[in-house]
Amino acid sequence: MGRSSVEAIDTKEMDYRSLSSSEHEQPPYMHKVGVPPKQNLFDEFKTNVKETLFSDDPLRPFKDQPRSRKFLLGLQAVFPILDWGKSYNVSKFRGDLIAGLTIASLCIPQDIGYSKLANLAPQYGLYSSFVPPLVYALMGSSRDIAIGPVAVVSLLLGSLLSSEIDPTKNPIEYRRLAFTATFFAGITQAALGILRLGFLIDFLSHAAIVGFMGGAAITIALQQLKGFLGIKKFTKKTDIISVMKSVWHSAHHGWNWPTILIGAIFLTFLLFAKYAGKKHKKLFWVPAIAPLISVVLSTFFVYITHAEKLGVEIVRHIEKGINPPSVEEIYFTGNYLLKGIKIGIVSGMIALTEAVAIGRSFASMKDYQLDGNKEMVALGTMNVVGSMTSCYVTTGSFSRSAVNCMSGCQTAVSNIVMSIVVFLTLLFLTPLFEYTPNAILSAIIISAVVGLIDYEATILIWKIDKFDFVACMGAFFGVVFASVEIGLIIAVSISFAKILLQVTRPRTALLGKIPRTNVYRNIQQYPEATQVPGVLIVRVDSAIYFSNSNYMKERILRWLTDEDEQLESNNQPKIQFLIVDMSPVTDIDTSGIHAFEELHSSLQKREVQLVLSNPGRVVVDKLHASDLVNQIGEDKIFLTVSDAVLTCCSKSPKSPEDVV
Amino acid sequence: MGRSSVEAIDTKEMDYRSLSSSEHEQPPYMHKVGVPPKQNLFDEFKTNVKETLFSDDPLRPFKDQPRSRKFLLGLQAVFPILDWGKSYNVSKFRGDLIAGLTIASLCIPQDIGYSKLANLAPQYGLYSSFVPPLVYALMGSSRDIAIGPVAVVSLLLGSLLSSEIDPTKNPIEYRRLAFTATFFAGITQAALGILRLGFLIDFLSHAAIVGFMGGAAITIALQQLKGFLGIKKFTKKTDIISVMKSVWHSAHHGWNWPTILIGAIFLTFLLFAKYAGKKHKKLFWVPAIAPLISVVLSTFFVYITHAEKLGVEIVRHIEKGINPPSVEEIYFTGNYLLKGIKIGIVSGMIALTEAVAIGRSFASMKDYQLDGNKEMVALGTMNVVGSMTSCYVTTGSFSRSAVNCMSGCQTAVSNIVMSIVVFLTLLFLTPLFEYTPNAILSAIIISAVVGLIDYEATILIWKIDKFDFVACMGAFFGVVFASVEIGLIIAVSISFAKILLQVTRPRTALLGKIPRTNVYRNIQQYPEATQVPGVLIVRVDSAIYFSNSNYMKERILRWLTDEDEQLESNNQPKIQFLIVDMSPVTDIDTSGIHAFEELHSSLQKREVQLVLSNPGRVVVDKLHASDLVNQIGEDKIFLTVSDAVLTCCSKSPKSPEDVV
Repeated sequence: MGRSSVEAIDTKEMDYRSLSSSEHEQPPYMHKVGVPPKQNLFDEFKTNVKETLFSDDPLRPFKDQPRSRKFLLGLQAVFPILDWGKSYNVSKFRGDLIAGLTIASLCIPQDIGYSKLANLAPQYGLYSSFVPPLVYALMGSSRDIAIGPVAVVSLLLGSLLSSEIDPTKNPIEYRRLAFTATFFAGITQAALGILRLGFLIDFLSHAAIVGFMGGAAITIALQQLKGFLGIKKFTKKTDIISVMKSVWHSAHHGWNWPTILIGAIFLTFLLFAKYAGKKHKKLFWVPAIAPLISVVLSTFFVYITHAEKLGVEIVRHIEKGINPPSVEEIYFTGNYLLKGIKIGIVSGMIALTEAVAIGRSFASMKDYQLDGNKEMVALGTMNVVGSMTSCYVTTGSFSRSAVNCMSGCQTAVSNIVMSIVVFLTLLFLTPLFEYTPNAILSAIIISAVVGLIDYEATILIWKIDKFDFVACMGAFFGVVFASVEIGLIIAVSISFAKILLQVTRPRTALLGKIPRTNVYRNIQQYPEATQVPGVLIVRVDSAIYFSNSNYMKERILRWLTDEDEQLESNNQPKIQFLIVDMSPVTDIDTSGIHAFEELHSSLQKREVQLVLSNPGRVVVDKLHASDLVNQIGEDKIFLTVSDAVLTCCSKSPKSPEDVV
Repeated sequence: MGRSSVEAIDTKEMDYRSLSSSEHEQPPYMHKVGVPPKQNLFDEFKTNVKETLFSDDPLRPFKDQPRSRKFLLGLQAVFPILDWGKSYNVSKFRGDLIAGLTIASLCIPQDIGYSKLANLAPQYGLYSSFVPPLVYALMGSSRDIAIGPVAVVSLLLGSLLSSEIDPTKNPIEYRRLAFTATFFAGITQAALGILRLGFLIDFLSHAAIVGFMGGAAITIALQQLKGFLGIKKFTKKTDIISVMKSVWHSAHHGWNWPTILIGAIFLTFLLFAKYAGKKHKKLFWVPAIAPLISVVLSTFFVYITHAEKLGVEIVRHIEKGINPPSVEEIYFTGNYLLKGIKIGIVSGMIALTEAVAIGRSFASMKDYQLDGNKEMVALGTMNVVGSMTSCYVTTGSFSRSAVNCMSGCQTAVSNIVMSIVVFLTLLFLTPLFEYTPNAILSAIIISAVVGLIDYEATILIWKIDKFDFVACMGAFFGVVFASVEIGLIIAVSISFAKILLQVTRPRTALLGKIPRTNVYRNIQQYPEATQVPGVLIVRVDSAIYFSNSNYMKERILRWLTDEDEQLESNNQPKIQFLIVDMSPVTDIDTSGIHAFEELHSSLQKREVQLVLSNPGRVVVDKLHASDLVNQIGEDKIFLTVSDAVLTCCSKSPKSPEDVV
């Protein structure tokens, strides 16, 4: 806007040249604005629903197929294993076997640790790595995801559940509520998939997830200080201040030095293994089996030294045998039903977000298609079945999926292999964990969640989008300083606020002619672009809806006022034509039509002609459905800005030739 | 997409011609994509905040002014009367006097009736037409709005308040809560204005307001059946089913025939007056004074016939004297404080919506600027002062503002005139209303709210936007069949759903070249547009955010798959270039950048080159901030689609010449 008068004169000369050249050398051809054929209501509705819910056109393979084939295809759609199973062979199995064994060695110690985060006995973590991976292998379509309990969901579930029931006082009710929540988490996930509402999880933005995960990682690591330092009395809150107070107050007599020694040694080992694996891609198996090695070594060490008599806390007892049925433990009536549903929805959504993010990133890495909605049905079924077989909410694990992929997994068979190993462990090996020190489990969890803190992504977010950064930091500090739930609420609110702001405050831009072309672009982006005298060209960069129609109208009028003032102070003629470039306006609603009517009448009072350029399909439809097209005049609507400018300049009493 | 092979061949020929002509006759000039100069963080933040909150640039008049002038301007900004008062003259006063007397004659009977809707004694309606209009006249900037109690807000307030306190059992607490709600309604309104968050009321869409108002009008009319039929036992619910049951059950012995007779006669008179006023613009004063005439005539009639002894309900008593102070009645502590705040926020927002809608429509009709945020501060102050002087929530009335305007009001002085008349009425005339039959008040309210049912607008909404129509009907049926609150919640939810849907499911379009131009447009809108062989051009019609980035990526890949299938079945070469037209993409966030990275790598695997055209200012910034611009290649980003197509075709091993 702050352009000197020298520039303005320059502008006119350039415009004169370009306009006259295009006028004389080749008579301008102007194509009419397309008015799409009127669709009937049903077709319009069908198209809209299809674009909204069936963007992936899931029924296309079924088209023009005989009934028997359709049945087979349907069965394959629900159980993809029937599809890829046909081409399964020994060489693929070799990859899956190695990958399955590797993730099994990683998941067993993690499961025992994570079940503590959910305030459940250690065997429930193992149960959750047995049944759900089997169900997923039948129904899931991701080849790389490793199913089982994960740190963040365990923490979230533990935190939500224990705000309803005290897990130490009422362990049975607590466990029953956990199964209830798992059941409804599964129902939520499957329902989102079946109703094709999977896009709802997109509302947790990438930035918010980065912040949330980072915060959760720190919170989980802080929780491990209990096991790591051997503290007996520990706060039940998860925020950093409470935890630090707890640690501080127990510093003098509550810390157990042998525990710290064991923990520190193995944490160093684990972190070093992680580092080695990161540095040399070939050594990826080192961090994968390091946890199991730590468990074996430390258990053996405690067993022979009887360090538990020095106060080193050990696991003591893990129930032997496979998952007992738990259908009857789910609350289907009563007071806890509603609470279970609420917790289930929240934890189910978060679990879904994690699984879908993992599935998508590996699918895009290996370039295969992943049907998000089908995936949700698979995850949901897996959790519903899990809730009936003593499992708590499971999903895809970031770290184990990466290990799975690097170990060369080919299909979901690696999950079956892992599941069989866990099954054997449950049957025969649980007594061996008796002397495993809790400090080792803490060290394993700490080394696992370190990877969730993605500071590189945070830096990139800061660089690209400051609003995203605020969402990221909001989620992070919310989780760290308040609680997991509050972090989540902050993340979702900021993400929503961003959307609403965008919809309420669309950008508008003044356009100018780029020299030597017929192209009109934002003069802020292209300072060399020149404005056409007597014509103001404004582009509205958003669909025009009730939420922004008033803003749009007032902003355009302000552009006009500003420009007129500027011109007046330079003793130049006033604006006579206002061209609104509608190219980015994808839709307009009744409020938007009203705003244009008001804009039109305001402009008439100022003796400025309203001209529209390039209205899209939907907009043209609505301009015709309302009376607006007749008010403005059909001859005032052009295909391109340059067509509109040409017509304005030839009509204007002060044509460019006169001015120069 | 479903285009025959004959067409496809035709396409190629046309493209060949147009491409070669532009290639040989005039060497194509390609302008570079503009990279805006890097703003520093503070400037960027400042610009964003300014565009978001200060789109109207309210501080511009203050720029470069001496301090004393600034003070005066500041005073005038808060009290616009100091500004327009200077040019006030006798001829303007003549207009205001007539308008003021007209709206006073209309408001007095309405006030008495509306206070019943709010379950308050009749004098509170009159009080509310005395103080608030005076405050508004000092601070408001609309010249046409008529301030006072209105039907919808009275109903809403009455409904919200009586769900907390029973107005017949605890009239004093009820009244105190009403003042509390009024106080916080004012605080809400003023706060929205001061914080410049006035755009929040835009979230109630035009369509939702039409439906809500229509539903409220029917509900209010139904409530009047009590007075109109002389029913003594009447339901406290407002939904149509409860009311109809009430009416039905009292049909045999509860209806009072003399009441119905009086009511019916005067309702006919009022509706006829309304009709006459609508038919002949010159008779606008007939419906304006008809209510007062009805009151005078019917009161006189009841007084001489003593019809009240036949069971005709009369007003009986209106407290004489002006507003008593009520500061001490407001709950600033205790249980009712929170409830008052909640009710205040809801009724304050609705009142604000109505006032701002009125203010805007008259301002645009008479073409003067109205500062929405300043207006909110005026309305808020007026309600805060009102709550301390025994008034309940007031706002601008649709019907009285229209009468005000038509009677020739010039400034807010007409409100002062009205206020003085009400003041005199309160002092001297209240005893005269003793024998006014309630049925007349009911008839007046019915005839007043009939105008709120805007079926023409509803038809237009149906024509323009089906989604808006759903919002409209949702609000309407919600209010009629459930309650005012539920109707409101439905309206807001549907409006939000619409925004979210737009943001989550942006449109994408395939572009083709319009014959004889270099312009590329949606082939669905321009069926004559031709696609360039080997090149797929997709336009994304929205900012790319976390909420839609995945959808966008998957939708583009599906366009590509569909097109390739089509081409393969016609034995034509595959797509080699995917041009994404970014013109409508106003913003992109980290998730969007990620989606493009994934799209780029998917395309690389398919041996398709990703090309971008016309990225906007913000997008170019972010492409550079992330590494994406290097991944895609800076030479793959063009100013226009036609530049991009030219380059693609010259690079392509199968250039158009080879194909033809």
